[in-house]
Amino acid sequence: MRAVVTSAPPGEVGVEDRPDPAPGAGEVLVRVRAAGINNADLIQAKGGYPAPAGAPPDILGMELAGEVAALGPGASRFAVGDRVMAIVGGGAQAELAVVHERAAMPVPEGLGWAEAGGFPEAFTTAHDALFTQAGLGPGERVCVHGAAGGVGVAGVQLAAAIGATVVATVRNPSLRAAVEALADGVVAVAPEAFGRLGPFDVVLELIGGPNLPEDVAALATGGRITVIGTGGGAEATLHLGALMGRRARIHGSTLRARPLEDKALAARAVESHVLPLIAQGRVSVPIAATVPLEEAAAAYARFAAGGKFGKIVLMP
Amino acid sequence: MRAVVTSAPPGEVGVEDRPDPAPGAGEVLVRVRAAGINNADLIQAKGGYPAPAGAPPDILGMELAGEVAALGPGASRFAVGDRVMAIVGGGAQAELAVVHERAAMPVPEGLGWAEAGGFPEAFTTAHDALFTQAGLGPGERVCVHGAAGGVGVAGVQLAAAIGATVVATVRNPSLRAAVEALADGVVAVAPEAFGRLGPFDVVLELIGGPNLPEDVAALATGGRITVIGTGGGAEATLHLGALMGRRARIHGSTLRARPLEDKALAARAVESHVLPLIAQGRVSVPIAATVPLEEAAAAYARFAAGGKFGKIVLMP
Repeated sequence: MRAVVTSAPPGEVGVEDRPDPAPGAGEVLVRVRAAGINNADLIQAKGGYPAPAGAPPDILGMELAGEVAALGPGASRFAVGDRVMAIVGGGAQAELAVVHERAAMPVPEGLGWAEAGGFPEAFTTAHDALFTQAGLGPGERVCVHGAAGGVGVAGVQLAAAIGATVVATVRNPSLRAAVEALADGVVAVAPEAFGRLGPFDVVLELIGGPNLPEDVAALATGGRITVIGTGGGAEATLHLGALMGRRARIHGSTLRARPLEDKALAARAVESHVLPLIAQGRVSVPIAATVPLEEAAAAYARFAAGGKFGKIVLMP
Repeated sequence: MRAVVTSAPPGEVGVEDRPDPAPGAGEVLVRVRAAGINNADLIQAKGGYPAPAGAPPDILGMELAGEVAALGPGASRFAVGDRVMAIVGGGAQAELAVVHERAAMPVPEGLGWAEAGGFPEAFTTAHDALFTQAGLGPGERVCVHGAAGGVGVAGVQLAAAIGATVVATVRNPSLRAAVEALADGVVAVAPEAFGRLGPFDVVLELIGGPNLPEDVAALATGGRITVIGTGGGAEATLHLGALMGRRARIHGSTLRARPLEDKALAARAVESHVLPLIAQGRVSVPIAATVPLEEAAAAYARFAAGGKFGKIVLMP
């Protein structure tokens, strides 16, 4: 099969032939139709974020959608030909990939391949961070940093869908209108302006260290910050007195390194909560571009350049 | 009535006459028999930690035990003469104090006045931090910093009582044996040595900023740090990548500023969990000294000097 692989020099990706994978116990083999590109892929291509044990070490890609092509021993959740989508530890950007059946979700009717291939990583990450980690509830006020990115777009829509009030920070002024159009009542502002719009019950932090002091200062009593990205830097200054006075907490989280049981739980939560929202048309997956798998290098370059709104999805 | 009051110059305390307080709706008037001294009293005496709204602004003391002397309108949980103990926003170190009946707990049979007067603040703080905030569970591994202090002594005993494994840090080598004797299996070490004894599911942080980087480094996957004191400094450096990789969280908390409903909930949790442990002899309140109310200045000086094991309790 053809696959997007890391190759020297660091930061460059290529498309090469690799042996077809075979599904193990409880796994399904998926003929990949679409596989989104994520920040973590970019970091991995630069050598900074190795795939977890058990995942293909050199084939990129953390999310995919496609048809079940074969069942491993004992796999029973899906039949050959079913449309599935999933987060994987690696190896998604290829013609074929193996997925544990407990980590896979059905693709809702009406969701196209590109949208399905760009859905799992961002929406599962945002759902886990907002609801499972931070416990966001209806009527709360949430700030989503980096809201024009994949996880941000997901977070804005999910928070609005449960009746939270959303303030979104977006560095690129030309993307703010698109973020505000994601759901009723969303206010998109420059990153420098969010503090005035607090206090916030929840802050979804995708930028990292530089934001943390102002995040804490803008928290309401009982507020929660969930840090799921550190693109702006991983070192932060934390004023413990400010945290104590607000009786607040800071979560750090990643999805990729979790064991199968945790990933399966996250997938079940998304299945039961988010898939119906897609069917109702209340949540959508904006797509910036679809790119043939063979042109992966160009797709990665476009992803790295930023300034886009929506996912860039490789189509094997 | 006689009361321990803040007085110029900052840091000094005096005993003066004040008008008797009167219980409002839902409150009881308590004839105080014992009132523990806490770190927060010391900070308040220095002008650094004002009493919350509704509490006497200049009478010190955040915990007390005594007999109900009168009932305010609508108060029905206790009868005149009942032995009660409670956390209050201020005003505990006096001959009389008012307490909302929902914030008060009965004093278990067999618990003396000194112990009862030194129980509420430390045990409620430790209970809330370990269980309500950090969700400590049986079989988990916990590090209690500053374990020879009031909250530390409470935390060590409560954690051991539910079947957690306890590592305690104690700066003063001469106090480590007493901390290890608090419960079976407790290991007391120098503050510099705890990192080697991890990873920890929960860290109870009473020192603050200087400890935080090593606290995070010593956390297990899914670990929680609860910061309830910053005697060593309130500014901390936080490596967000380390927090994310461990899928960990940091809580900051204080009891004093909470609204009545939160304090009442904390009191109910202590009533149902800790009072039976006292009755069973599995939890004790070490007393370093009892001091007559009139000698409050000497008691505060002894408290500030440190090196003690157990509470210093004023006896009006």
